[in-house]
Formats: sequence, C-alpha cells, structure tokens
Amino acid sequence: MDEVRMNSTTLGVFAWTELEREEGKYRFDWLDDVFELINSNGKRIILATPSAAPPAWMSRAYPEILRTGPDRVRRLHGNRVNFCWTSPVYREKVRSINEQLAKRYGHHPALMLWHVSNEYGGECFCELCAQAFREWLKARFEGNLEAMNQAHWTRFWSHRYTDWSQIDIPGNPYGETANQGLSLEFKRFTTDQIVAFYRAEVGALRKHNASVPVTTNLMGFYGGLDPWKLAPYLDVVGWDSYPQFRDQPIDVRGWAKAALTHDLTRSLGGGKPWLLMECSPSSSNWYPVMNLKPPGMHLFETLQAVAHGSDSVLYFQWRQSRGGQEKFHGAVVATGQDNTSRVFSDVSQTGSALDSLSAVAGSTTTSDVAILYDWDNAWAIDGACGPVQGNKRYFETILDQYVPFWEAGISVDVISQECEFGQYRLVLAPMLYLLRDGTAERMRQFVEGGGVLLTTYMTAWADEHDLTFAGGIFSPLAELFGIRVEELDALYPEQKPCVVLPRGSHFGVEGAFEVLGFAERIHVLDAEVVGSYGKFWYGEEPAITRRFVGKGEAIYVGARLGHDFNEPFLNSLAASLNLRRNYDAPTPAGVTVQRRVGRESEFLFLMNAADKQAHLAPPERPAVEILSGKPVSHGITLPPYGVAVLRLE
Amino acid sequence: MDEVRMNSTTLGVFAWTELEREEGKYRFDWLDDVFELINSNGKRIILATPSAAPPAWMSRAYPEILRTGPDRVRRLHGNRVNFCWTSPVYREKVRSINEQLAKRYGHHPALMLWHVSNEYGGECFCELCAQAFREWLKARFEGNLEAMNQAHWTRFWSHRYTDWSQIDIPGNPYGETANQGLSLEFKRFTTDQIVAFYRAEVGALRKHNASVPVTTNLMGFYGGLDPWKLAPYLDVVGWDSYPQFRDQPIDVRGWAKAALTHDLTRSLGGGKPWLLMECSPSSSNWYPVMNLKPPGMHLFETLQAVAHGSDSVLYFQWRQSRGGQEKFHGAVVATGQDNTSRVFSDVSQTGSALDSLSAVAGSTTTSDVAILYDWDNAWAIDGACGPVQGNKRYFETILDQYVPFWEAGISVDVISQECEFGQYRLVLAPMLYLLRDGTAERMRQFVEGGGVLLTTYMTAWADEHDLTFAGGIFSPLAELFGIRVEELDALYPEQKPCVVLPRGSHFGVEGAFEVLGFAERIHVLDAEVVGSYGKFWYGEEPAITRRFVGKGEAIYVGARLGHDFNEPFLNSLAASLNLRRNYDAPTPAGVTVQRRVGRESEFLFLMNAADKQAHLAPPERPAVEILSGKPVSHGITLPPYGVAVLRLE
Amino acid sequence: MDEVRMNSTTLGVFAWTELEREEGKYRFDWLDDVFELINSNGKRIILATPSAAPPAWMSRAYPEILRTGPDRVRRLHGNRVNFCWTSPVYREKVRSINEQLAKRYGHHPALMLWHVSNEYGGECFCELCAQAFREWLKARFEGNLEAMNQAHWTRFWSHRYTDWSQIDIPGNPYGETANQGLSLEFKRFTTDQIVAFYRAEVGALRKHNASVPVTTNLMGFYGGLDPWKLAPYLDVVGWDSYPQFRDQPIDVRGWAKAALTHDLTRSLGGGKPWLLMECSPSSSNWYPVMNLKPPGMHLFETLQAVAHGSDSVLYFQWRQSRGGQEKFHGAVVATGQDNTSRVFSDVSQTGSALDSLSAVAGSTTTSDVAILYDWDNAWAIDGACGPVQGNKRYFETILDQYVPFWEAGISVDVISQECEFGQYRLVLAPMLYLLRDGTAERMRQFVEGGGVLLTTYMTAWADEHDLTFAGGIFSPLAELFGIRVEELDALYPEQKPCVVLPRGSHFGVEGAFEVLGFAERIHVLDAEVVGSYGKFWYGEEPAITRRFVGKGEAIYVGARLGHDFNEPFLNSLAASLNLRRNYDAPTPAGVTVQRRVGRESEFLFLMNAADKQAHLAPPERPAVEILSGKPVSHGITLPPYGVAVLRLE
Repeated sequence: MDEVRMNSTTLGVFAWTELEREEGKYRFDWLDDVFELINSNGKRIILATPSAAPPAWMSRAYPEILRTGPDRVRRLHGNRVNFCWTSPVYREKVRSINEQLAKRYGHHPALMLWHVSNEYGGECFCELCAQAFREWLKARFEGNLEAMNQAHWTRFWSHRYTDWSQIDIPGNPYGETANQGLSLEFKRFTTDQIVAFYRAEVGALRKHNASVPVTTNLMGFYGGLDPWKLAPYLDVVGWDSYPQFRDQPIDVRGWAKAALTHDLTRSLGGGKPWLLMECSPSSSNWYPVMNLKPPGMHLFETLQAVAHGSDSVLYFQWRQSRGGQEKFHGAVVATGQDNTSRVFSDVSQTGSALDSLSAVAGSTTTSDVAILYDWDNAWAIDGACGPVQGNKRYFETILDQYVPFWEAGISVDVISQECEFGQYRLVLAPMLYLLRDGTAERMRQFVEGGGVLLTTYMTAWADEHDLTFAGGIFSPLAELFGIRVEELDALYPEQKPCVVLPRGSHFGVEGAFEVLGFAERIHVLDAEVVGSYGKFWYGEEPAITRRFVGKGEAIYVGARLGHDFNEPFLNSLAASLNLRRNYDAPTPAGVTVQRRVGRESEFLFLMNAADKQAHLAPPERPAVEILSGKPVSHGITLPPYGVAVLRLE
Repeated sequence: MDEVRMNSTTLGVFAWTELEREEGKYRFDWLDDVFELINSNGKRIILATPSAAPPAWMSRAYPEILRTGPDRVRRLHGNRVNFCWTSPVYREKVRSINEQLAKRYGHHPALMLWHVSNEYGGECFCELCAQAFREWLKARFEGNLEAMNQAHWTRFWSHRYTDWSQIDIPGNPYGETANQGLSLEFKRFTTDQIVAFYRAEVGALRKHNASVPVTTNLMGFYGGLDPWKLAPYLDVVGWDSYPQFRDQPIDVRGWAKAALTHDLTRSLGGGKPWLLMECSPSSSNWYPVMNLKPPGMHLFETLQAVAHGSDSVLYFQWRQSRGGQEKFHGAVVATGQDNTSRVFSDVSQTGSALDSLSAVAGSTTTSDVAILYDWDNAWAIDGACGPVQGNKRYFETILDQYVPFWEAGISVDVISQECEFGQYRLVLAPMLYLLRDGTAERMRQFVEGGGVLLTTYMTAWADEHDLTFAGGIFSPLAELFGIRVEELDALYPEQKPCVVLPRGSHFGVEGAFEVLGFAERIHVLDAEVVGSYGKFWYGEEPAITRRFVGKGEAIYVGARLGHDFNEPFLNSLAASLNLRRNYDAPTPAGVTVQRRVGRESEFLFLMNAADKQAHLAPPERPAVEILSGKPVSHGITLPPYGVAVLRLE
Repeated sequence: MDEVRMNSTTLGVFAWTELEREEGKYRFDWLDDVFELINSNGKRIILATPSAAPPAWMSRAYPEILRTGPDRVRRLHGNRVNFCWTSPVYREKVRSINEQLAKRYGHHPALMLWHVSNEYGGECFCELCAQAFREWLKARFEGNLEAMNQAHWTRFWSHRYTDWSQIDIPGNPYGETANQGLSLEFKRFTTDQIVAFYRAEVGALRKHNASVPVTTNLMGFYGGLDPWKLAPYLDVVGWDSYPQFRDQPIDVRGWAKAALTHDLTRSLGGGKPWLLMECSPSSSNWYPVMNLKPPGMHLFETLQAVAHGSDSVLYFQWRQSRGGQEKFHGAVVATGQDNTSRVFSDVSQTGSALDSLSAVAGSTTTSDVAILYDWDNAWAIDGACGPVQGNKRYFETILDQYVPFWEAGISVDVISQECEFGQYRLVLAPMLYLLRDGTAERMRQFVEGGGVLLTTYMTAWADEHDLTFAGGIFSPLAELFGIRVEELDALYPEQKPCVVLPRGSHFGVEGAFEVLGFAERIHVLDAEVVGSYGKFWYGEEPAITRRFVGKGEAIYVGARLGHDFNEPFLNSLAASLNLRRNYDAPTPAGVTVQRRVGRESEFLFLMNAADKQAHLAPPERPAVEILSGKPVSHGITLPPYGVAVLRLE
C-alpha cells in the first residue's frame, strides 16, 4: 500500500454476516484488528454500514425484509441490495448494527468517514411498500383524493380511484401501465423511501459521534434514484466510475460522458471537491467485454476525475477475491499477482501523480455554463407513450450538447430545474418535457436578467403530474421565446428533412443539417428565425429561433440535429457570449482542458482522450507542469491518453 | 363541430366510473347534459356501454372480475379490456349498467346506435374460464371424452385425458403446448365466450327499446377473435382503422393492406355499407413512430374507406385528453389548439368531401373475386410446429394475392371457408391448411359449376381438429386438382430454386421465378403442368398445375413465389376470365379504382396511393368529378395521395 | 419393414396412459399383440419404460410429481419430461409400472434391450428438490458447513450460510445468481438425481430378469446432464442424432459436429460399438426450417454414424402420427404415403447398405488423439461472469480443434478430465478453465511419459469449486508449461491484434494470424516462444509457447485463433508426431476417412461431406468397396454426400 501511496481504506461493505453471524451476537475482533493494523500504519479508514446485503439467517427469520419484484413475487435470498425499503424489521436491524458500529468505532482515531450502505438502488413492490405508497400519495395530495384523480386525469379509461385503498403500485407485468402520472409518483416515492432509509442509517451512526462525516456512493446518471434529493444529506458527494462499461472500445465521446458525470457529481455537492469512491485499476468482470486498459489510460481516467473536482482516487478493490460474483474484477493486487504486475504499476503511477498534485486538493471549479438534466423529466420522458416507442434519447441529447463545451475546454455545471440559474451566463435545457410550477417564471427572470437560455423540441409539454399544459405544448414558454409550437413530427430513419441556416446567419453557422428523428412545426410570434426546414412538406417553416428579452436571449432549436450542427453552433454561441475557455490556445480534437482554482494557485488539466498524439501551444501565462515539475516553455505534447497538469504562476 | 361538418358523436366509451362511482349509485346528470347539448344542435349520438373498463372499486370488491394472464396470475386493476369473459359477477354488473343506460337513453331522439363495449379482445386463463372451457369441450364432443381424445390424438406422448376435469387451458408459459388441437379449441372457445358476452350486453340493451341498432368496433385482421362468429349479431359492421401503425413510412402496400381490411369489413356485413368507427385525424401515440400525415393523406385515408363501402368517417377523438395513456394521440382538437391548426383543416377537408359525397351513402359493391382468409386456418397455421418455426406468413400471402387485383381496380371480397363461393367467378384460397368437413365438396361444386379456384402449397393438410388427413396432405382435394402432393420442402433463405414457366405457357406468363421459402413436390394425376422447378435436386418436377373440371378450373401453385410472378399471373388470369375492371382505361402503378353502385348512380373512386403524381385517361362513359363538381373531359391528374370521385352519367 | 430390412423396433416410449388408464389397473393386451406380431415376424424389440410422460390422472392426483421451473412455479400437466426428479410418489409410480413391464415381458424371446425413459433432461426447482439439494450438499461437505462456505467463498457479499436450511436452489429469475460455486453444485446435483432416477428405474426392471441389457438415449453435448456420470450404468451407449437442426443449410462443419458427437458417444462407451437410437429419415418438425435431404444425404448421415462406431440405425419414427406435437416429423411411412415415397426409398437404400455392412458390426476404433471436453468445465465457463458476458465459445473451440483432425482422417476420442490420458499420443485440452484436484499432476505424468499436451488461454483458472487458484490463473500448470499467465485481454470485435509465427518457426507454420476475442499476456519461465503478438500495445510479447518435458511436450496457445491457424498448425503437429492417418492418400477438402477394425478385417469409411464431387487415389493396400462389392483399382470418386466403405485385404 505504501508502494502505491495508498493512504486510506474502505472497510466493511457487505460485512454483515461477518459482524453478526447470529441474531444479536456481534463479532468485532477481526475488525478491531484491521483498524489497529491500518491505524498503526498511519492510514485512515472509511467504514461502511453493512445494510447492502443482509445475512441469510435474517432472510429466513424475517422474509418480509426481502425485496419483491415488479411481478409481485418476493425474491429468494441472494445477490445484494436485495432488501425492502419499507420493512420495519429491516430498518430496525440496520439501526442496531449501525449503532453497534458507531459505538465501537465512532471515536476511533483512524475513522475518517462513514460509507453508508452501497450503491442504493432498485424498487420494491411488496405489500408493505404498496401500503407506504398509498400513504405517501395521501400525504402528497393532502388527503384530497379528488385532487389526485384530477392530477392523474383518471377520468380517462375509467381510471378514477374512489378510495385510497384501491391504489396498487403501478407497473408491468401485472399492474397499471397506462397512468403515467401514477408511475411518475412511484419513482418519486422510491427516491423518498431511499432517502428516508439513508437518513435512518445516518441517525443511528450519529448517536455516538455526530462529527464524523457521512456519505454514500452514488452512481452518476443511474435512473432509479434522484440524487438531488439525497445530496443535501451527504457531507461529501462521491460516485463509482466505470467508464469502460460499453459495447465497444471506449472513445472520445465515452470519456466525455465520464467527464459529464464527474461534473454532475461536483454540481451535486455544490461545487465542493468530491470523492471518486470506486474505480477499477484494470477491467471489471461485469463489463460486456473485459478489455484491458492500454498504457496511460488508467492515469488518464483517475486524473480526469481530479480535473473535474475529485480530491480522491479510491479503488474497488485492493485484493481480488478468489470466489463469488466478482472474482475476475480488476484489483490492485490480483489473485496470485504481486507488485510486479502491469496493473500494480499503473496504480503506482497514479499514486505518484496524486502525491505531486497534493496542492490541488481543496481547489474548486466555477462554470459559466450549466446543462440542465432533470430526473423527474427523464422519468416522464421514458414513461411517455409517444412520440416514439423506442428510446427518446434524452440523455444522449444532453451529452450531445455537452461535448462541444468539453472539447472547447469550457467548464460546465450539471443542474436540475430546481437549481438556481442566476449564476450562469448560459443555460442549456434541451428536451425539458416536464416543467415544474415556477420554472417558466424563473427562466423568464434568468433571461431578462441577462442569461442566455437554449431549449429544444419536446420541451414544456407537461406539468409535474405529467398533465399536458392546457394551453398546448410549450405554452408556458411561448411568450418568453416568442413562438408557438403546433406539433411534433416523429420521423422514420428513412425520412431526413434538413434544417437550413442561410449564409450570413446569426451565429455564423450556415448550411443544411439533417434532422434526426424529431422535428417540430413552429409559429413565430415575436422572434428571429435563425434556421428553417429545407425541402419537405413543411419546408420553409421556421426550425430555429432566437429572441432577445431584457438583457438576455432565448434560443429555440425545434429539430434534433447532430454534431455537425451542435459543434459549430454552440462554439459560435460560446464565442459570442465570451464564455471563459480554460485554455487560451487552441486545443486539438479529443483534447480537453479543465480548471481548478485553489486559494493560492490555479491548475489546468490538459487531457488527451484520443488515441493519437496531440500538441498544444503553451499558455500565455507562465506555468509549471506539475507531474514532471518542469516549466512549460515550447508547448505541450500529449501522447494518447496523456495528461499534463499546469500550475499557472 | 359544425365547421368540420361533424353530425354524430360517440359517447360513454370507458365512462363506467363516471356513471357509477359507488356500487349501484348511478350518476347520469352529466350525460343527460351532453345528450341535451348534442341533440339541441341537431346531431346524433352513438352511445357506448362501459364494459371495456370496470371501475377500480369493482375490482377491489370482486377480484374475480379481473383478467388472468397465460401465466395464470390475476392482473392487478389497470389499463383496459382487463376483465374476465366468464365471471358471473362481471356479467351481472355489465347487465345492470347496460339496462340503466337503455332505460334512460333507449328512447332518446338523438340515440342512433349502441356501441357495445370497445375493441373486444384478449384471453382469460382464470379458473372460472378453465371450468367453462371444460364444459364447452364436453358440449362440443357431446360428453364423449373418447371422441375428444381421438380428435386431439392424445395417445401421442401419453396425453390422453381420462376425465374432463383433467383438462387445463393450454398455453405457455406453464400449460400444455404440445396439443395443437386443444390449443385451437381454446381459440374457438374464447371467440364463443366473447360472442356470448356481447350477446348478453345486447340483451340488456334491448329490454327497453329493441329497435335501436347495435354494433361493436372490430379490429380488422386481429387474431384473437373470429369476426365471422360475431358479425351475424351486429346490425351494422364497423372497424377502427389506423393504417400508419408500421415500422416504416406507409407505402403503397400499406394502403393495399388498409383496402383489404376495408373489403373484409364490407364482406363481414354481407356487402352492406359499413362504418369507419375510429380513425386518427393525425398520428396515434402508440405508433412506433408518431409520423405526421403529409398534405392530402388524411383525405386519402378517409375516402379510401368510403371507396370500399364505408358510409361514415368517425374519429377517435374530438378533443385530446390532458393526461392518461393517450394524451398525445391525434385529435380533431389537440390540447391548446383550435380551428386554425393543420389537423383541423385536414378534418374540415374530409368533412367537405363527405358532404359532397352524400349521394354515395347506401351504395354498394359487388365483386367477381373472393380471397379466402379463414381464422380457424390462421390459428392452426400459427400453432403448427413446422414446416418452419418462424412466421409462416399466411396473412402476407393473402395480401400478396390481393395486391394485383387492387392495383388493377378489380373489386375483391374477403370470405371465410364457410361463406358461399357460388357468387364469384374466381376464388383464391392460398395456404388453406385447415379444411373443414364439406369444404372440399363445396369447392368441387363451385368449380364444376364454372368457378375458378386457385390454391397453393400448405393447403388441405389437416381437418378442423388439426388432424392430418389419413390420405396424406392435400388428399381431400387431390381428385379435384388432379395432383398428389408428396411433401413440402422448407427452404433456407440461402436456397433459391426457381419455378420456370416456358415460353408460350398458359396465362401468357413466362420466365423463371424465385421460390421464397416453401416448395412442394407434386405428382400429376390428371392436370396440365403450367410451371416446373428449374435446376435443383427436384428440378423439372411440376410446380404449378391447372385442371379443367366441369365448367370451371382448378389451379395449384405449389411454391411460394413473389410479386414478380403474382402480378402478371393474376392479371393474366383476370383477363382470361374477363373479370370486371372498375376503370376502363389503364391505371398507373399505385393507383387503384374502386366502385360503388347506388340505386341511381355508379361511383368510381380513383385513388393515388403513391407519393408521386399520376395521370389517368378519362373513362369511356361521361362522368362528373364530384369533389370539384366538374365534368371529366381530358383525363384526370392525381397528385400524391390524390383522390377523384366520378359519378358516371 | 422387410422391404427396408428393418429388424428391430422400439416400443412403448410415452405409452403410460395406454398401459395404465386408471391407477393400478394395467392394460397389456394391446402390447401383447404387438410383441406377438413382431416376434412372429422374426424381429426384435427394444422396450421403453414410460416414465418420460406420466398420465394426466396422475398429475391431478399427485401434483407433487409435476416439474417446477426456475421461477418456482409448478408446471401444469402437459408436454413431456415434465416430472420431478425427487418426488417419492413419482419414483414409486415408476417403479410399479416398470416392474409390471419387467414381469410381463422380461423373459419374452423378442425382448432385446430396455430403453429406459426418453431423453432425460431438465431441472426441477420444487421444494422437494430443494430439500434434496440441501442434503446432497451436506453429504458432499461431510456435514461441514464452514467447508462449504470456504469452498463457495461466501464471505463475499455477505453470502455466508449459518445453517444448511438457509440454502435455496440458485438461479434466475428469483434465486441467487452470484454464487457460481453453488450454481455449479446444482448442475452436479441434477446429474446425480437423474442418475439415481435412472438407476431406480433399472432396479425395478432387473427384478425379474437381470440379464436383459439396459440403456437410455443420450443427447450428445446436451448441457443439462454430464453423460460421463450416467454412462457407467448403461450396458450399451446410444444417442439421438438430428444434425440438420440448424439455422442454415448444413455444411461441412455441421457434419464435422455430427462426427464429433458420434466420437463422444463411442468414447462414453469405452470404445465399444454404440447405438444410433434415433434419426429422422426426412426432416424434423421442430427444426427451424424443415429442409428436405437431397439425394444421398440420408445414406451419408446413417453411414457416418456407423463409420464412427455405431452398430445400428434406428429411426424416430416408423409411421407418422396424425396429430400431436410431432405430426409433421419425418417418418419412414408418412401419413398417406407408402413404399413409393422418396423417403421410403432413402430408407431402403440405408437398409441395403447396412445389410452389406454386416461384417462391420462389432468392429472398433482406436485413436491416437483425444480432445478433452468436460461438462463441469462447460458449466463453470457458462456460469462465469467474465471475461465477456456473451458466449465464451467453449464448445466452438472444441469443434475448431476437432475439424483439422477430422478432415485429415485421423481418429479422435472425446474425453473428460477424469479419463485416462496415457493411451493417447496427443491430448488437446483447450479452455480447461476448471481444473480438478489431480488433473495437473496427471497431465505432468502424461507429458513426462511421452505425451503431447496442448492447451490454451482460459485454462486452469479455478478449482472444482470455481475458486480461482491462490497462485493465480494457470498456476497449477505453470511449471509444466514453463510460463506464467498474467492476465487475459478480452477484445472487442473491432480490436484485432495478430499472433505472428516467424519464418522457419516450429511446426513449419508462419505468418500473422488474427486474434479472435481473447489474448493472454504471458511470461516465459522456461519454454520456447513459438509465436508472439504483432503490432499492439503488448506487441512482441509471447503468445504461443512450447516446452519439452521428459519424453513429451507441453504446448500453449495463448490467444484465440481461427481455422487459418488451426488447420496448418494441427496438421503440422500431427505430422511431426506421426499420428496415424486412416487413409494413406491425400483427401480433398470436405472428405473424411474413418476406420473401424474388426477381428478379421479393417474397414475404411470414405465420406464426402461437401456438395461437390471428390476424387481419391486408391489406398496402398488392396481393398474392396463393400457397398458395390467391387475391388478398388483406379481410385474412388465420391459424388456429393457420397460414401464408400473399403474392406482392406
């Protein structure tokens, strides 16, 4: 561990049966020994609560603790994260073990952080949860059943409930699938149950020493939990990053996706440094293909996290297990390997780099740009029957808009619609189908106050109950953008109208760009037309508009367009707004520059996500490359996956 | 409504909870008001019974009413058409509400038609249905279990039943899947249960005024219900047409499929005018892709229905709902839209056209040609294990044979094997795998009496119990066609033998035509060989034969061939039989002409299903184009999706 | 039957309900009659026990006999092989009927063989089986729960059991899927239950006449049963061969797969002649596509079985049934057909050929080469989470290595890792992931004693409990092969490094060969490098090695390579080892020669699996072609699917 400069260790994830082999009989000796060993070596401990995997004896004694699937069948004991969110018995068992841990280790000098449970996720459909869901709905609608019927438009298909007890948890294969409002509520309910479960865990931990910080490991854009609801209760935010989990070799866009998720994590923590809580030093056994990392890639992926705000690189796992589900998962020390392995050497390289970057710790990032990705909205879009039955590509659209900024080296925050907009110069809110009460007004204020707001097709169709707006789609934003949206045309792949931006158009972008699947028919009320449809049956109708409002600007892109459009258009927009680029010289394709600012220094991370060498001119300000310790003079050459970290003087 | 010339309204589909919020407490005030409003505006009402969606309170009080799926698990309340066909409780509840409706509105002057339930469909696997199925089987086999065992050949795999009580409903994932005869019976049983359910609904309605006509909305070639069993109990036949429900933009063949289904509907009603009971003025939210209709297409689709015999164009739906499953479904008035929308204008265009076509109402169509599509046969083919495991393409084969007639403007009826053949010159009965008792004899009489009968590979293999004929496949028809069929070769896509028709062959068709998947080895007993297999291991063996019998002709096509063969072959056959073409001048590809004959006038609908302009020479008889009101002089130009309606003078 | 020279008949498969229509009331008259008829015609009988399909009355009376699926839902009565392996009631019922059969027919002069049940297969997940599984585990671990926890590494994810009663049968969709050791045990348990079930059946049969031989029909490489565990209890081994069951027309590789399976069957029987217990004279209705056999193919497939050691050709089925699941399945006499059919003629041809081959009966085959395919290993590979989630292609790899020997006319045995190696010159053991205790040592002895052992990537990773070796992957074989394996790189299809064998390399093979998915990084301890990786990030590292040990040789192929490599490499290896080729002249592609040696004669089967004509030079020794009865002089011409059988003088 010293050899790779490892200074902290997570312990006890999934250790319940080792801690409590029989109900109420605790065994801490082994863990005491580990604490002692680590402490005596001057390292710190992150101690997990074991709730992510109850013991088999508990499942047999109290079957209600087991999770029930969407088919309303209780799962047998096995796997992990296999428990009911609601079961009082399980909450009590978790409370007990957590209190025991807190009592025994809460004041241990090596204890640095509580790692609560592990990767909270999944839904439970048991009768306990159904009953809790009914009560949650009753509370949400303040006991007014008629209000719920109205909100969920239950007059359609005779779906009106005449008593709260008639409500079941919706969902395939047996339950209601035609009440999208109710399905959306169940997503929210599950998030609320998880938050409550987490808070109960934390409550037990804090009984003995409330000063130890707590967190849990998030999962990026995982759809089963709205992390904005959990983040306020985390003392530090972190996530588990496995960017190679893909159907093809990871590429530049794959690294952009990792970057976007790091930015989300930083934003969830309010911009504070965060923790990379898990990564693999090698491949992961549950990848579709256990592809090894070529030289340099591991250093790239770890420093990428740091570049976007992480103050840690933690691994799953130090030593590989010989059996069980993840026995092939990458580890710093694989079974039978030692400190001579390729992987150990990669990890050492990261350890050395982190050592030399110690001054970066605590530094932060601020962004001119925010991209709005909203969980409620994602759920509503996924649940919508139409405009296509397949993937509506909300997340892909977010990533499409992120990539040009990432490549340009412009820092981006990732926000929900409940976040403040005012601190940004530009907010991108594509496909914001579900618009909560107040968002339209806050957008208006943002634009009038000087902000630039860009949105797209499939925005502002429905309210928070997934009721379409009585005024029609986009009606809440019609005045702000100066347009009326009549209808959306979903296109077959064979159908490819274009959007044409004329020579000398706004934004300096011109040409014809193929529409990819979605095109809206728009009427201009009071806006400039930036682009129009090319030859098609609604050819010459407006497709992209812009309206100056107050000190700001409202831009509408009515059709789904590709990177050929997004790249020049968003770059031109960034230039016109004078958005701060992190690097003052041009950057080649595949190279991004991220920036962290400390009390005394400013750091630039120059990263080459492409598999070919790249060269950058030196920055205007004098700088030292920290990893090598040398001043930058004649520019910087980055090999494939190469990283340079500059401290600006 | 006046603006689009709407003159009638369907009410009350799925309105049960609005009518009966508590058991036995009815609320009709709101419906009274709607009746009054519509009546006072001079419009008519089609009133639905609400059985397609029971209230949630009823499902809670009487769980037996809920449908049970093939996995024998009772569904939770939700969605629609979610009830058991057998439950006595549900039948009683439906009877009560129907009687209430009949009592209150049965004599209302605005009431024009009862719309019973909605799109009857699906199967129930509950124990009540299982018991009813056992009783149905017992009745069908007159209490003779041994007769059933023989009919279902249960000695195979030791499947013999020794008591009626041993029978379960067959089917995946848990039940018997290897007794095709029994599976076929369950299809028939379900149709019988649905017909009984419908007739019980009608009985309740007729208690108060038996003179109001009744119907229900059918679903074309939907496989879950044999509409020939229900049609005798409908005073007028109708169906819900959504032809754009496809994986790719609709094309000429797609419109031919719509035409075929319209012809089926007309045939189900015995040739009388029928009702287009639902169509979408725009897209439908459950389409794979909500593609908008380009200009003209909506008028085309509605007049196409009229051309094939409909006397109505009804919409689902007038006004879009703001929530629920179909909130994006096309409507005459979409949420937030008004009479200025594109869709409203399309509907107005249809309304105007229908106005000018009022003389067409009541006119009918007669056909020289019938295509035989049989539900029993479709079920048996689908259920057969072999000759391929994939789609055996029965429906596609029907459509293949329909298209040449449709393109030639030759009217076609669609019949079952229980219909009369005698009124036709030509009957096409491809892939008639299941041959009922008597069909062979009726075919012989038809041919001897002067009819031409064409059939194909995979015909007359099994009797109504799906027992293969003791004399071998095709044996019941061997004498009539003068051939013996030895075996069928199912071909992989890589295998492409040809069928060769020599120069100067019968029908004037010559050349080599690729076989598509199925080829039979045939022995000629007493027939002319029209075509033979080309180079292959059974090359030079006969593939297509013809035999003159009495005054008629029996034609056999032993291999599956494509449009390259069907088009010239069937056209040549039509010419040789002097079948009446609806238009006396040639019609370009993609253009069809359909004909309706009234008491005083004859109407020709010229329709261009292609997306390019078409030109037709004028008809020989003087004619007026009704939509424009102008006489036809120098021919007719149809834009893409253009329609002209000629009244022949 | 005489016409096709049929001399024996299998009776009574699935006849239970015909034999016992009511519990305990047996009906043997009809079977007596059939016995009498067959016996009086001088033919012999193979009598089946009926356990593969219990009567419906039994399922109703004793539901516990029905099989329960992985979803823990008991199946309804239907289909076949639908019973629980454990149910005491079912075992008792089977015992009773078997004893009845044995008592009545056990001494009948026509009885030749007991055919026990039919195609044993499938798993049961009922509570009776779960309880038996717990007891089986307890016995396996000698009551030591801690030993089982250690073996299954249950400390991972808190999976430790603290009581045997906590164990459920693992598996989707509800059970444990993350304990691969336990999943593997369930596979073994099922094999043990089937063997016990079989032995109980046999015990009942032997009560009345222990001298009648017994067997059951195996299914080749079927994965649900380890046939090596059952084979010791079979007096003669046999299998059901349906080689055309494919997604595309059968090709040379398809026939090689049939040959491999025949070789497995022969090896299971210790090299003794075996029985082809079922084949189809025509197509099989459950094939994806019921493709007919072109002329010659049927004779080819039946003589191929004989060439690889079968002493019989038995058909399913003599006469087609008119109903039930398999009414389209090929039969010697199809419904409505007679002795004039194409199929009947094909069967006659086989009958004549077998007649002329009577001297072949009893002859055997010995092989210099063995390929090791191991069921435990196949289960462990299938169950492994990684190195890819898709098909890891174990069986395909076996076939890849078999094909070059088959094409070269070199006889091959197929063995498990528990078989003796010493009798072979060359053992191929690719992908032997799971290495049992003792196998490494036995391999060392084999090589030191003069054997050549070839293995590959993904070998010797885990012990019999699926625990990875503490010394790392391949560690048990590291010394023998003189290499250390560090890690495996799973490659995406886009990634194609090469393995390069330099000019003048060992084995006379040179060039660059594309890696197909798996490549290992290897360190040479004490071995020659035969091939290395080409340009890649681990380019120039060793990929193929060879080490001379004692009198033998240990060859390692570290990457998955294709036929372009396997064919020259294995041929070169065969040549260098002077392995006996069955034919002394060269054979064209697609032609194989197999050899059987009798007491007095030696027979060569020359078979052309390709669809084009092939010519072979005559053998050096004088020979007679038996089917034609003519001496071989100027060489042999084989049409497509042609077979010649030479008796060497």
